[in-house]
Amino acid sequence: MKKLINAPDAVVQDALRGMEAAHGDRLRVSYDPAFVVRVDAPVEGKVGLVSGGGSGHEPMHGGFVGPGMLDAACPGEVFTSPTPDQMEAATKAVNGGAGVLHIVKNYTGDVMNFDMAADLGRGEGIEVESVLTNDDVAVEDSLYTAGRRGVGVTVLLEKICGGAAEDRRSLADVAELGRRVNANGRSMGMALTPCITPASGDPSFELGDNEIEIGIGIHGEPGRFREETRSAAEVAERLAGPIVDDLPFNSGDRVLAFVNGMGGTPLIELYVMYGEVARLLGDRGIQIERNLIGNYITSLEMQGCSITLLRLDDEMIRYWDAPVDTPGLRWGV
Amino acid sequence: MKKLINAPDAVVQDALRGMEAAHGDRLRVSYDPAFVVRVDAPVEGKVGLVSGGGSGHEPMHGGFVGPGMLDAACPGEVFTSPTPDQMEAATKAVNGGAGVLHIVKNYTGDVMNFDMAADLGRGEGIEVESVLTNDDVAVEDSLYTAGRRGVGVTVLLEKICGGAAEDRRSLADVAELGRRVNANGRSMGMALTPCITPASGDPSFELGDNEIEIGIGIHGEPGRFREETRSAAEVAERLAGPIVDDLPFNSGDRVLAFVNGMGGTPLIELYVMYGEVARLLGDRGIQIERNLIGNYITSLEMQGCSITLLRLDDEMIRYWDAPVDTPGLRWGV
Repeated sequence: MKKLINAPDAVVQDALRGMEAAHGDRLRVSYDPAFVVRVDAPVEGKVGLVSGGGSGHEPMHGGFVGPGMLDAACPGEVFTSPTPDQMEAATKAVNGGAGVLHIVKNYTGDVMNFDMAADLGRGEGIEVESVLTNDDVAVEDSLYTAGRRGVGVTVLLEKICGGAAEDRRSLADVAELGRRVNANGRSMGMALTPCITPASGDPSFELGDNEIEIGIGIHGEPGRFREETRSAAEVAERLAGPIVDDLPFNSGDRVLAFVNGMGGTPLIELYVMYGEVARLLGDRGIQIERNLIGNYITSLEMQGCSITLLRLDDEMIRYWDAPVDTPGLRWGV
Repeated sequence: MKKLINAPDAVVQDALRGMEAAHGDRLRVSYDPAFVVRVDAPVEGKVGLVSGGGSGHEPMHGGFVGPGMLDAACPGEVFTSPTPDQMEAATKAVNGGAGVLHIVKNYTGDVMNFDMAADLGRGEGIEVESVLTNDDVAVEDSLYTAGRRGVGVTVLLEKICGGAAEDRRSLADVAELGRRVNANGRSMGMALTPCITPASGDPSFELGDNEIEIGIGIHGEPGRFREETRSAAEVAERLAGPIVDDLPFNSGDRVLAFVNGMGGTPLIELYVMYGEVARLLGDRGIQIERNLIGNYITSLEMQGCSITLLRLDDEMIRYWDAPVDTPGLRWGV
């Protein structure tokens, strides 16, 4: 295993120290329990947004903490759910009196722990709501999931709900908007290579020299099938086809098209993929109104990509376009 | 070779199509000769900034085209210099009457071709100046270079000179500022793994399972030495130590610290590295005033990183902070 780390069990803490050193003007890091929080939290009268999950998916979630997006993020160990005490502490830290929204990806551990943290928060008199993402069309149940996995839509939801919270919308409104985003978003991913978790030191799975996996999860969970390497055009069809059919997305729909790198994919390849996705959607009369291209929800050094489509309405566009000032997404400020 | 491409000889063109589809509101793509240009070029009375180089280093340079940074970028084939006709066409396209600055990384082909393009531009009555970057302290001459290689400083120089050009500074001023940035910047990189160019299909070099290379170039050119895998703290010392000693950077200096991923490195590892760099500079009394962390000058899917330090003055800080609106760097707008 070759990694730029000091020790497998120090990765998350060392990376948090790096984040604090780099972004201390905007973020504060609590180490025990571990969470990253806006330096000006709690923001009085604003709904507080908390997310979290296993580490190894950076910039998600810690890199999305800041004005216009998350108020706090709880990092677990690599590919491991954070604990309820982290989530509870983050919830208290961002409570500005307007309630707190938990944004939870559908993995069994995350769901269970955020449920517990929500109960703990309510026990302290904080109004807590939760929104679940489960946008991955690849498989119905997975290694760590009952139902569909939560993947790329999470990034878009954190941005859009972040905009709404900044606009001082109510907890009920922000939660409803988040559920609408999830309901209108679909994703699917694929891998060219596996990733290696620092703790195990071994690849999360094996792929032949000429083999790819379609429908892979962000922890290397099995996808739909393996096959020989394909052209970018064929890979785009294999991912975007099932996504379009699932919702379904129809001619005339306006969408945000998100081509996400798994962490080890060169940007030049993501642009090749985006070109293919744009062509494919154009052929079906689906209008791309906004886009996002890059490494936003990753699986360590895995090579591959995922595609997410979100059917947009005017409110989503307005909050997507709203200013955001985080390490991972920044515009308008 | 597993890549998200359609065909090795179509990668650059397909990626350009993706860029145009994604960013057509801000960029225009010319395919023959190939260059990416601001949609509003030429900007009357503004110095035009043109850069370029081999593809495979994305987002550099095409991803840095936009208000506040480059006016145009010329992509060569992967790891291959663009041709003088591309550079000449880009120079003409961005000439708003205040002259054009070429930003050239020190590689023999790039230097020769930009020289020729500058002559061609002057032949058409355009005032053309050039700034060379040669910030890599690893080796004095390299596989494709007489003198030091131009690497990470190029990104910072494009941003800072872009700010100055947007501020309607004269060609002489912008060129002088660019030379000052290069003179005050130093870089060094390392690799955990090689990369594979689409045309060759083979790794650019071989590294053992437990081996890293210190001082590597962005095309996999040999560095200073190979050794067994080290901790992030030791790697930071091996890169930042020679950088600090070379200029030298002294206690009390204010710097921009740039931790760059080579394309295949997870962001969590870049933050671990940044934490180590910050500690090391702190120990030496060097003050980090600004930072940049992520994949900005890459080598396809190579895993590894580079560190760049730039000694800042007030003018550099002012233009670094100025608004920028490109696919790769965006703030203030």
